[in-house]
Amino acid sequence: MHIMNPFVLLTDISENEIFPGFFGKFIHTETLTIGHIRIAEGAILPEHHHPQQQITNVLSGKLKMTINGKTKVCTPGISVVIPPNVPHSAVALTPCLALDVFHPVREDYKF
Amino acid sequence: MHIMNPFVLLTDISENEIFPGFFGKFIHTETLTIGHIRIAEGAILPEHHHPQQQITNVLSGKLKMTINGKTKVCTPGISVVIPPNVPHSAVALTPCLALDVFHPVREDYKF
Repeated sequence: MHIMNPFVLLTDISENEIFPGFFGKFIHTETLTIGHIRIAEGAILPEHHHPQQQITNVLSGKLKMTINGKTKVCTPGISVVIPPNVPHSAVALTPCLALDVFHPVREDYKF
Repeated sequence: MHIMNPFVLLTDISENEIFPGFFGKFIHTETLTIGHIRIAEGAILPEHHHPQQQITNVLSGKLKMTINGKTKVCTPGISVVIPPNVPHSAVALTPCLALDVFHPVREDYKF
């Protein structure tokens, strides 16, 4: 069975600023996109939506997220489930790290 | 648009031992399963496979993983892409935390 190298080093992936202050390293498979996201303190993710389902897992810091009008300061130990096409926005109250999961693939994040 | 509470607190999810020494808290959507996995030092995940694609993101510790015969000691900053039905196994060289992503859903991890 032929498979590519299964071990992906984040140091081998270029970082792209997807919104001001939001820096992502993305891994794409046939069906999933995984985003390792670094967020600068004070950075603002404007309200937007996309057809992909998203699950944001806060790994460090405090990220104030608003999903369809509901707001919570998210810290490690909180996962945020964002259904397809639901508007969401965020403000980084501190520097943050997050791991975002998208299905299906974010073609627009293939750099 | 009606959606459930998008904010999922891991403290509200029961932990289940899926293999000896591997403790998981799982979030399921229609298409994805996210597993927040805590692994005891020395725990062994025997070789197995499943139809779901899996991406394991090591968040802390040293997890020696073998995917289809290729072995690497995985640490934070490494994501492991396991295609459907590919055999994989692991040994925790230290206590570890990992975030596993599965598509489609792991019905067997609905507790």
